[in-house]
Amino acid sequence: MTAVPLSRSGAISGGTHAFLTRVYYEDTDAAGIVYYANYLKFAERARTELLRLLGFDQERLRQEAGFAFAVRRCVAEYLMPARLDDELTVTSRLTALGGATLEVEQRIRRDAAELVRLDVTLACVAASGRPVRLPRPLRAALSQLLPTSPVVAHHAR
Amino acid sequence: MTAVPLSRSGAISGGTHAFLTRVYYEDTDAAGIVYYANYLKFAERARTELLRLLGFDQERLRQEAGFAFAVRRCVAEYLMPARLDDELTVTSRLTALGGATLEVEQRIRRDAAELVRLDVTLACVAASGRPVRLPRPLRAALSQLLPTSPVVAHHAR
Amino acid sequence: MTAVPLSRSGAISGGTHAFLTRVYYEDTDAAGIVYYANYLKFAERARTELLRLLGFDQERLRQEAGFAFAVRRCVAEYLMPARLDDELTVTSRLTALGGATLEVEQRIRRDAAELVRLDVTLACVAASGRPVRLPRPLRAALSQLLPTSPVVAHHAR
Amino acid sequence: MTAVPLSRSGAISGGTHAFLTRVYYEDTDAAGIVYYANYLKFAERARTELLRLLGFDQERLRQEAGFAFAVRRCVAEYLMPARLDDELTVTSRLTALGGATLEVEQRIRRDAAELVRLDVTLACVAASGRPVRLPRPLRAALSQLLPTSPVVAHHAR
Repeated sequence: MTAVPLSRSGAISGGTHAFLTRVYYEDTDAAGIVYYANYLKFAERARTELLRLLGFDQERLRQEAGFAFAVRRCVAEYLMPARLDDELTVTSRLTALGGATLEVEQRIRRDAAELVRLDVTLACVAASGRPVRLPRPLRAALSQLLPTSPVVAHHAR
Repeated sequence: MTAVPLSRSGAISGGTHAFLTRVYYEDTDAAGIVYYANYLKFAERARTELLRLLGFDQERLRQEAGFAFAVRRCVAEYLMPARLDDELTVTSRLTALGGATLEVEQRIRRDAAELVRLDVTLACVAASGRPVRLPRPLRAALSQLLPTSPVVAHHAR
Repeated sequence: MTAVPLSRSGAISGGTHAFLTRVYYEDTDAAGIVYYANYLKFAERARTELLRLLGFDQERLRQEAGFAFAVRRCVAEYLMPARLDDELTVTSRLTALGGATLEVEQRIRRDAAELVRLDVTLACVAASGRPVRLPRPLRAALSQLLPTSPVVAHHAR
Repeated sequence: MTAVPLSRSGAISGGTHAFLTRVYYEDTDAAGIVYYANYLKFAERARTELLRLLGFDQERLRQEAGFAFAVRRCVAEYLMPARLDDELTVTSRLTALGGATLEVEQRIRRDAAELVRLDVTLACVAASGRPVRLPRPLRAALSQLLPTSPVVAHHAR
């Protein structure tokens, strides 16, 4: 995590994006904890803000470039529950970048406690739903985040 | 309510549509009751099934006729809370039918107890969001449900 | 709205609380706009943050004082739709404060455009669901926000 | 799938539970398809109805036996998207049953097309969140559903 306060879109540091989100009544269920599907919403908010920080707006990508990200696979491990009023940090780290897919490792924490681990595979799809290659500028921006990228290695680590 | 078992789309009797829906964990919150916004989902499921019973599929209306219903106004009164596992009946009664708008009175009950009252004003809109007149066949079908309709008055009351 | 950047909990100025929230995919529907029930989530986030700014945490109120707020009535007028990626401002103004109830006028805007108007009546309830009087410190804090309060009139306007 | 019409709670046949659920506007997003987190809601509805068919009500289990199921792990593979108005079948098959955990293989289909595969590991937890052993009657009922159960093998396969 960064020492400086996070903007609403979070911050990228050392190839890891950190994003804060709050638990409201809407997220909880009668067991008094966050409903298991809602962590996937938190994770998607974080991915959206990571793209926004890189200069890419999903609504504009959809309208101008005619494409969107579709989740192909999501592995969620629930270690500890989040509760009403918790402030959560979602960290996102790009772990693979293919021609039309990418893999993101996401962790949801409350302070130092890791609550949920999500490993998400996304595909770049056209409006038709068919897979398409990532647009070159988006791919270039994302590749900066890869752990093996020399740019990241030299400047940010 | 009708004596015969309701189909998944519910049933229309005496101008009133009745529809059953169940409360799951996803609908509840940390206070142990259904979250206040989620009753609006139940109400919309009921309106959708009422249209389906009349022969109108919202997805087809959107793709073929290029229009959708937009909620213009919704008044919700919360009398008693619903809880996990409750089976709820949503009744819907058309109370007004204009050129491009309609008003629906919806009540959510658990057995005999009235839990939530919803009065909803809907507008017929084009894909652009501009108001458009209700397509004639849909309007004809809906007018059968009006309390002042002689057809309803003679046969169903 | 205030000229200074809003904190995550928003800011109170002249008796009006302003809170920023972002539209994500989870909030939208197949019509390409925010689903009508989800504005009620945005409104509740704003009310929660208003309470937090006043020093009251809903989860602590629930666990320590054994009470919660229940929505009794909600009138929503939908003027214009919000869309994916919109940044919305929710303003909340207390308009009435009774022994066990309060009324809040909430407006959801995108820049200068008013999108949704919500008038919400809340009741203070015990864990059992029975109405209870507002705890004195909470009532004192809320009364500062009333438009007729001389404190607000002298200092903040 | 069975030839007889499913009840609201679905039906169990050959150790597999089948449950029908409909896609409404609330489930879709601006991409025109079901939002990826919402399939987890469909899956949980199905698990809840499977328990109900076996005679176990989650709200009663929570209040009387003081326990609930917590999802420990969920692997979701998204093969094809579901859309507004789709009627989906969720099939659930118990694949493992430990002292305090169980594994369920769930598949979401539209007609013959498999859309989403979910493999879910659940733990039995007390109100405190601590793992507890499955109550004996529930365990007995569930063990009937295991593929290796001789009862299932003789009568239903």
